Formats: sequence, structure tokens, C-alpha cells
Amino acid sequence: MRTQYCGHLNKSLAGQTVELCGWVNRRRDLGGLIFIDMRDREGIVQVVVDPDMKDVFDVANQLRNEFCIRLTGEVRTRPESQINKDMATGEVEVLAKGLEIINRSDVLPLDFNQKNTEEQRLKFRYLDLRRPEMSDRIKLRAKASSFVRRFLDENGFLDIETPVLTKATPEGARDYLVPSRVHKGSFYALPQSPQLFKQLLMMSGFDRYYQIVKCFRDEDLRADRQPEFTQIDIETSFMSAEQVREVTEKMIANMWQELLNVDLGAFPIMKYEEAMRRYGSDKPDLRNPMELVDVADILKDVDFKVFSGPANDPKGRVAVIRVPGGAVLTRKQIDEYTNFVGIYGAKGLAWMKVNDREAGFEGVQSPVAKFLNEDIVAQLLDRTQAQTGDILLFGADKKRIVEEAMGALRLKLGNDMELTDTSAWAPLWVVDFPMFEEDDEGNLHAMHHPFTSPLGVSPEELKANPAGVNSNAYDMVINGYEVGGGSVRIHNADMQSAVFDILGIAADEQRLKFGFLLDALKFGTPPHAGLAFGLDRLVMLLCGTENIRDVIAFPKTTAAACLLTDAPSIANPAALDELAIAVKAAKEDNAEQA
Amino acid sequence: MRTQYCGHLNKSLAGQTVELCGWVNRRRDLGGLIFIDMRDREGIVQVVVDPDMKDVFDVANQLRNEFCIRLTGEVRTRPESQINKDMATGEVEVLAKGLEIINRSDVLPLDFNQKNTEEQRLKFRYLDLRRPEMSDRIKLRAKASSFVRRFLDENGFLDIETPVLTKATPEGARDYLVPSRVHKGSFYALPQSPQLFKQLLMMSGFDRYYQIVKCFRDEDLRADRQPEFTQIDIETSFMSAEQVREVTEKMIANMWQELLNVDLGAFPIMKYEEAMRRYGSDKPDLRNPMELVDVADILKDVDFKVFSGPANDPKGRVAVIRVPGGAVLTRKQIDEYTNFVGIYGAKGLAWMKVNDREAGFEGVQSPVAKFLNEDIVAQLLDRTQAQTGDILLFGADKKRIVEEAMGALRLKLGNDMELTDTSAWAPLWVVDFPMFEEDDEGNLHAMHHPFTSPLGVSPEELKANPAGVNSNAYDMVINGYEVGGGSVRIHNADMQSAVFDILGIAADEQRLKFGFLLDALKFGTPPHAGLAFGLDRLVMLLCGTENIRDVIAFPKTTAAACLLTDAPSIANPAALDELAIAVKAAKEDNAEQA
Repeated sequence: MRTQYCGHLNKSLAGQTVELCGWVNRRRDLGGLIFIDMRDREGIVQVVVDPDMKDVFDVANQLRNEFCIRLTGEVRTRPESQINKDMATGEVEVLAKGLEIINRSDVLPLDFNQKNTEEQRLKFRYLDLRRPEMSDRIKLRAKASSFVRRFLDENGFLDIETPVLTKATPEGARDYLVPSRVHKGSFYALPQSPQLFKQLLMMSGFDRYYQIVKCFRDEDLRADRQPEFTQIDIETSFMSAEQVREVTEKMIANMWQELLNVDLGAFPIMKYEEAMRRYGSDKPDLRNPMELVDVADILKDVDFKVFSGPANDPKGRVAVIRVPGGAVLTRKQIDEYTNFVGIYGAKGLAWMKVNDREAGFEGVQSPVAKFLNEDIVAQLLDRTQAQTGDILLFGADKKRIVEEAMGALRLKLGNDMELTDTSAWAPLWVVDFPMFEEDDEGNLHAMHHPFTSPLGVSPEELKANPAGVNSNAYDMVINGYEVGGGSVRIHNADMQSAVFDILGIAADEQRLKFGFLLDALKFGTPPHAGLAFGLDRLVMLLCGTENIRDVIAFPKTTAAACLLTDAPSIANPAALDELAIAVKAAKEDNAEQA
Repeated sequence: MRTQYCGHLNKSLAGQTVELCGWVNRRRDLGGLIFIDMRDREGIVQVVVDPDMKDVFDVANQLRNEFCIRLTGEVRTRPESQINKDMATGEVEVLAKGLEIINRSDVLPLDFNQKNTEEQRLKFRYLDLRRPEMSDRIKLRAKASSFVRRFLDENGFLDIETPVLTKATPEGARDYLVPSRVHKGSFYALPQSPQLFKQLLMMSGFDRYYQIVKCFRDEDLRADRQPEFTQIDIETSFMSAEQVREVTEKMIANMWQELLNVDLGAFPIMKYEEAMRRYGSDKPDLRNPMELVDVADILKDVDFKVFSGPANDPKGRVAVIRVPGGAVLTRKQIDEYTNFVGIYGAKGLAWMKVNDREAGFEGVQSPVAKFLNEDIVAQLLDRTQAQTGDILLFGADKKRIVEEAMGALRLKLGNDMELTDTSAWAPLWVVDFPMFEEDDEGNLHAMHHPFTSPLGVSPEELKANPAGVNSNAYDMVINGYEVGGGSVRIHNADMQSAVFDILGIAADEQRLKFGFLLDALKFGTPPHAGLAFGLDRLVMLLCGTENIRDVIAFPKTTAAACLLTDAPSIANPAALDELAIAVKAAKEDNAEQA
């Protein structure tokens, strides 16, 4: 029904007759003429309707915003004075020769020119997606998927589908369950990732696998999480961690080059320990120039328990963030930051303003100065390379609390003080994660997942000192977001059993849950390694938005609801009978929907 | 770790040293040498180990089938007498220079050289997939997906993801339900297709959409059905049914050309009415030369109620299949076919052998001949173009029963009598389906789905005579399989309401279930049309298998179970508590698992 997209019209078509289909983005009546901004998925073009064309003009007179129309017209160049440089098609306009109303529109419940609440936008998602800003994001997402597939196809990866109705696996989050009608009382789980299936595919010899696949986690949602999310899932055989990183780094770098024309450069590789030490985070945003500077050695003898306690505790840490220009912070602002670090368990936020660097002890202003002496202040100023006008902020507590609190504070300050270069790109690899982390009860948990290979130890060595072993895992981080993560996998049944043992999974439970994996490991399993990227997050970064819902056509709210279709909803009682399940609770919680 | 795939070695590499990774497909000891057939995903190559290389020979001596190995060796051409023409790499072999056992293998529970039960194959799927026949199918599937994406990308279609956790929609089959933890007592449904979302995307202006997407139906399974299946889902705006068929026919034709080097030719277009009349099926296998020939007019006055009853009933039908060469059928065989049509409700299967065409009435043999006369037999022989040696088989009953029974019989006879040309390809389009079908209680059901546009009527005309209206729907059929189906959609709220009314969906239920769709139709909805292909079925056809499980890496049994992971399985009681659901029945049905 069309010869061109509105958004593709340009001077080379001048004089030609075109047929367009699309929507009335705006109508203006001016000087006896009617001007229509006509929109389709590729853009907007200006249409002029002359009253001399009476039939066309009469139809145009009925047009309202968002009517769906079909137009025949002649492309003509605009006079120099009327060229609109803000519009891709601004050098031309279309003189209407024929006009048909395909479908009328009621007045929209959304106003495209104003900010609508996210609730309104989600309820009328099909209209929100008409906004060029939104449709551009969805189009960029399609380009990103398409790029990834092309890259992986060309590199010998095979797209292989894995089941959605499957068995619970221990990625650590809560599973979505699906009751079985045939096997009453039994449930499928929706996959948190295709982890075990992709490992089985390596055991089958497929060698290079990928899939762009939906994964599911029934967790309490944050702004950048969705109950269903999309993973670029990759697995390889006979490749080292370095080789996996090389091919996937190339994929991401090429993607940025192709879609944004940005050169990400070579990705630095940073060990987990260094990332935590310098940035208090395993996904550091390197666009932010501030670092955590250790000062425990300087403060371990001061007569101030807040500092000296953690400074002398092997599990403690005392670290300083120097905020360039931070001496301007008011008492009120500092109080707010103190509250902020409190969220992470920090009991306070000692500070020291550097009003005059040259004046040393005399030039600093700090509620804790009285516990320090001239020499200690001098050492602090030297260690942190403080300048006049800076502020030093102190974290002193258990290591984990200091890192979480100061890591988060660093990010917040970077934004608030505009120290983070938001125009830059900062990718890196974080490697050599600890194999296990200990919870408050002293139980060990797999830091990645229990199929991750430990780095350079035998099963016996691993069992002897599990807490001291690193894993052969790697995360890709861009601008402070973990966009991908993976590892070399265990390809040996003894090592896999050792890890299950350390995690406290009893032999019979290992058999019940992972018998098929332990069996599979006995039949000539190849060494294999892989990685998974979060497609939603990658596209968020590509689009420059921080709202994951902006890059998903039909997202759910943070309460896991779809406001458009009103899912989830009450099930048909007959359907529940067939599934042999009953709902226990009243629907009291539904009021919480948002 | 490798320089080449085993399956890629050829004469051009003679003299070169290569590194290979793979599996021991077979080991033979012959004349003091060890021969290893080494396999990877691309194929098999013969490795020779010479006892002069003592270290290598000692390692080779430990090898058993399916050990995972790494090999360094020199490619050399085989002497003319030893060339193996059955092997893609049969002109070369590799002389081992270095050999490393990466991982040992227990004796396999499957024997690759014998037929294993499907249960064994599914339980040890990771081993079954090592068989070249299986891995070739999975590779062909990956190529098919990749081809489709490339074709659709190049034609301006956007890959847009739709939700998996969504709301029940009325595709007609049973939904899989997912209990919500946040909204206790509410359920998501897994999509039977992204039908409404793709229509909403058209309303958003995306214009050309596709997705290769998992869909779910909780139905009792047949050999060619799976609870989760993969759909190539397509939707377009501003395109007619003809244009949609044109672009998708081109996609399929190009796919066959690229993957099989087969020219499917132009697809004939057949109306539903003709397909049912000539083949008793809306997905006729045109490779089968037999047809249903109507003979009611000839038989309506015979003194044999079995014929004359249906022949005079406006809802009845009397049809004959002429089976070339079928006079050889024994009484026992005919009895078996009689039982076969009984499955479809036919009460019998009258027959007439044509022993001597020239002899007319005298030349036929039939238990019903006594009810017929010379003239009638002559007319029957003429109408069916019977030849000496043929058999005529009669179906006389309600139209629906005759079509189902004789349609199925036609297919069975085609196979049994080897009349169907199994080397041929027979694609076609079936169009102009009835809008509704009537059930035994006289209720109308949508033949496709309730969003399908009727053909050439107003909402008022549709309501006046719903049973007489056709829909603008089309199915693509290849070799008797419905591989895809679609329609022009309703893009007008009044028409949509009219269809819901005819289907007996009350106004408040329309609002509750489809309010968002009826709303969306009010805001300038474009005309739109689409189609969905069953990827699994397409790949089945491409692979030449009739078992859908052969083209799915990890399929489920006909009892919807995964024998590999043992899904579905008992859920953790704490998880069910969190979901506020309880299992009502004991697990008595689980014994049925297969």
C-alpha cells in the first residue's frame, strides 16, 4: 500500500509521486493550508494540503491526531527559508494529491508532548510505543539482536534451543513453577538460565553454541530487573577463558562500533580483589575517577575506636574517598550522605575538609581531627593526594560493609558532583573471583554457580581450603553495569562432586537433582567454558537509558504485573481442578499491584 | 586448542601438521597399527598411530570409544586403494604425532551401531546427540533459523520480543499456568502464540514484525506435537493477504533452495471448499494422486439406505476413492481399512473391485453390487475413471465423517500402496476458510481465531449469517503438513465485538478478557495481517523425518516429560507455600509417565 516510508523521503525524490501509509502526528491549519506531520516507523514528513484540491482538503479537514491515513502526493523541495534542520526529512515536503482515512482515532489517553506517568505509559503501551523515542529503542534492540546473531553465526556458533518447561536448577534465585496436568502434583520450573543444557550440548559435541533466550527469576524486582529477561547465552568447547573473552569482547566491541560508531578500545582485565579494594565493587564504573584508599595502617594507633577498631581487625577495613572539590558540601549534604551509607550498614561517615592543603593540620576541618595529630593528618593528605577544596570521607567497619557502603557512596558522589564522565565508555573484565562466599552462619555459597571451575586446584586441594580458592570466572562490566558473566566449567565428575560436597549438598540430593549431570560427566566430557550477556542491559546502555522497561516492548512493573493485559489474573477454577491445585490464600495482596 | 575440524580435512592439507580435538568414534588394531576414527561436530577422519612413535602408541593403546582426545598429526593422502568414498574425508588420513587423553569415558549406555529405544535415547540425550545423524539435524535446524532471520531482516522485519509470562488468550487449547507469588491467587499463562501482542505492535506502528518464539499448549500430545514448540511469528501492516503470502512463500521457497537445493516452484492456491471436496482435508498431501469423487447424484435413488440416505441428506456426502491397482487387496486388508475408517466414525467401507473394466457390470466384484444396476455401475466407473485392476472404496455418511474418514484413508492407502511420491515436494496455499465451525450443540467456534477478519462483509452482514461467511485466512501446506497459517486481522472495534458476540462472549467478559484490545482498536489501528510457521514442522520436513523429537535438542515425551532431567518433578513445599497453592491430588497418575 506504500511506495516509501515517510522517514525516508529526501531531495532525491523531488518531483516524484509517492504513496505513504501512517499516522497524523500533528495537524496545523495555517494561511488557508493544512499541514500534516505524517509519521510511520521510519520517521515524520510534512504534508501540505492545498484548498484547491477540494476533495483532499475536505478529508484533511476531518483529520485529528493519530488517525491512520493513506496519502498519495508529490515530493517537493522546500524553499531555503522553510528548511527544517531538526527534521531528517526537513528539506522536503509532500503536496497531497490523494488522501484516505484508514481508521479514525479517539482522543489519546496519553499526551505525546508531555511527560506521562509510567503507569499510563504501561497501560497504553501500544500508544507509548508510537513515540519515536520509544520506537527507536525497540528498533535498536532488534538491530542489536540481529548483530549478535550474525556475528555468532559467522564465528561458527550454532543456535540451539533449550527447554522452557524444565527442572529446577540452583542458580540461586527463586524459580517460577508450572503445575503439570499430566503428572499431577509435579511441577516444571522455568529456567533461570539454560546453564546445564548448554553444558550438555558441549558433552554432545556441538562445540560452539549460542541462543538468545528468555530466562526467569521470581525475585523482588528492582528498577533494572524484570521477572523475565533475555540472555545472550554462549558456550564453547576446547577454548580457554582467554579465548572466550577474546571472541565475546570482539562481539561487544564490534556491536558498539556498528550500532553507535563508538570504539570501546581494548578492555582492561582487573582481578576481583583489586576491584573491591579500589572501587568497593566487583562491577566498577571506571568513568568515575574516585577510589577507595586504604588508610588502616595510618590509623591503627589513634585513640578513636571507630577507626582503630576496624584498623586492627583482620576482617575490618578503613578506607577514604577523596572527593575533588568536595569541601563545598554543606553539613546538611554530609548528613544526607551519612544516611545514605547507613542503608549499607555503615554506622557513620567521618569527614575531613581540606580547606588549605599547604597548611597541613591547621588547614583541615573535621569533627574527628581532635583524635588525630599533625603527622597522621599529613600522612592521610599524602596518601589520598588531597588538594585544597577536597573533602575526605572515611569508611571504617567490617570489610564487607565498608566496601558496599563506600562503593555505593562513590557512585552517588560521582553523579552528584558530576565527576563521572557520562559521555565516556568504560568497559573492563573482572576476573579471579573467589570460588565461594561465606554467609553470616559460616556456610559457603557458590559465588557464580556450582558448575564453575576452580582455578588451578585438584578436588582434594579444593576441599582442604575452599575459602581460599578462586574460580576461573569472568564478568564483563561496562559503565558500572555487569553486562555479562561466565566461567570455565567443571568437566570432571570428581571435581563436581567435591563442589557439591562443599556446598553441603548430600550425596542422595546430588543424585536426585544432578544425577544426569554427574552421569554425563563420565562419558568423555570436553573442557568447556561460556558466558551469558544480559541483552536488556546491553540495550539499555546502547540506548542511554537507565530504565530497563524502556527497552522492552511489553515490560512488567516492579510488582511483576502487566498493566496492559492485567496479568497475572484469576484462573478459571476448572483449569485449577484439572491441574489438581488449589489456591490457599485470599487475594488480600492484590491491592499492592502497581 | 585445534587448528581444524576433523570433518574439514582434505587433500589440500596434505603434508601439513594439524591439531584436532574430538572423540574416539571407533578404534581398530590392524597389522600392528592402531586406527582411530576421530569425530567432531563437522565429521570423522581416520587417524593412524604407528608403533614407532612409542609414547603416542602407548596413549592410543588406552583409548576406548568416546574418549575425548586431542591430537597432533600430519595429514597425508591415502593410497588410491585405500580411499574411502563413503567418507567425506576418505581421501586423507592423519598420522599421529602427539596424543592426549582429555577425558575418559565409561562404556556407553547407548550403542551407536544399533537401534536404541527412544526412551534410552531421551534419557541419555547428550549421547544420542553425538550421533552424526542427530547432530546433522540440529545443525540443519540452526541453519534454518539463521536463514529465516536473515531473510526477514533483509526484508525490513523487526525482531521484537513479546512476554512469556502473560495473560490467558483464547487460541482454543489449554494454557499452561504459572502461579504468581507477588499476586497470590493469580496466575500468568504461557502464550499459545503472541497473537495479541503482535497485533498491538502493529497498532504501535512497527509495521513489519517477526519473532522466532516458544509457544505452549497443554494438550494431549501426538507424535508430531510438543508441549512447547517454536513458531516463526510474522505480522505486517498495510499489506494484503496476497502480499503476505507472496513474501512468506518466497521465504520458504528460498529456504528450500538454500538448504536442500530444491526448487519448490510456485505454490498453487486452493480454496478450503475444494480441498475438502477433492481430498477430504484442509491440508491435502498433493503427492498422493487419489481424490474423493462425489457420487451422491448417481446413488440417490438406489435401494440401499447406506448410500441413498446420505445421498439425499443436505448434510450428507457420498464419495468414492479409486485406488489404482487396488483390486489386489485381500478381504483381510479391506477389513483392516474398514476398521481404520471406523476410527473416524464411518460405519462401514463399501468396495467394488474392477476386475474387467470393459465388461462393465459383469466385470465388477462388490458386496453392494446387488443394490446397483448396470447403468449405475457404468456411471460410477465413468465418473471415477476406473481401470481394470482398481478398487473403488465408498464413503457415505454425514459430510464431516466422510471427509475425515476418506481423507485419512486416502493418506493411508497412498503409503500402503506406494502411490504417494515420497521423493516429491507438494506445497500449496489453502484459502477462504469458513469463518466459524459449528459444534454438535450448534455453537459456533472460530475456525482460526476470533481476531481473523471475515471476507467482504460488514459487522451487520456477519451477524445476519455467520455460518455462511468465509474468513480472510490462509494456511501453507507442504506434503500434507500444515506448516503455517495466518490471516488478515480485524482492525475495527465494531467488527471485533460482532465476532465476540457471535462466539457467545458476553459484553462484560469481552471487557474483562479483551478490554485492552477493544480499546486499542479505537486509536487509528492500521489494517494488518500475519502468519505463523511451525519451525519444528518445517525442520522435520527439511530433515525428512516424521518424528518431531528428532529435530528438538531436548524434547519431551508424549506424556510431556523430560526423561533426561526428570521434569516435571515434586516441588519444594516451602516454594508452594510462598505461592499460596496446595496440591490436591495424590500422585497416582505419575505411574503413567513414559
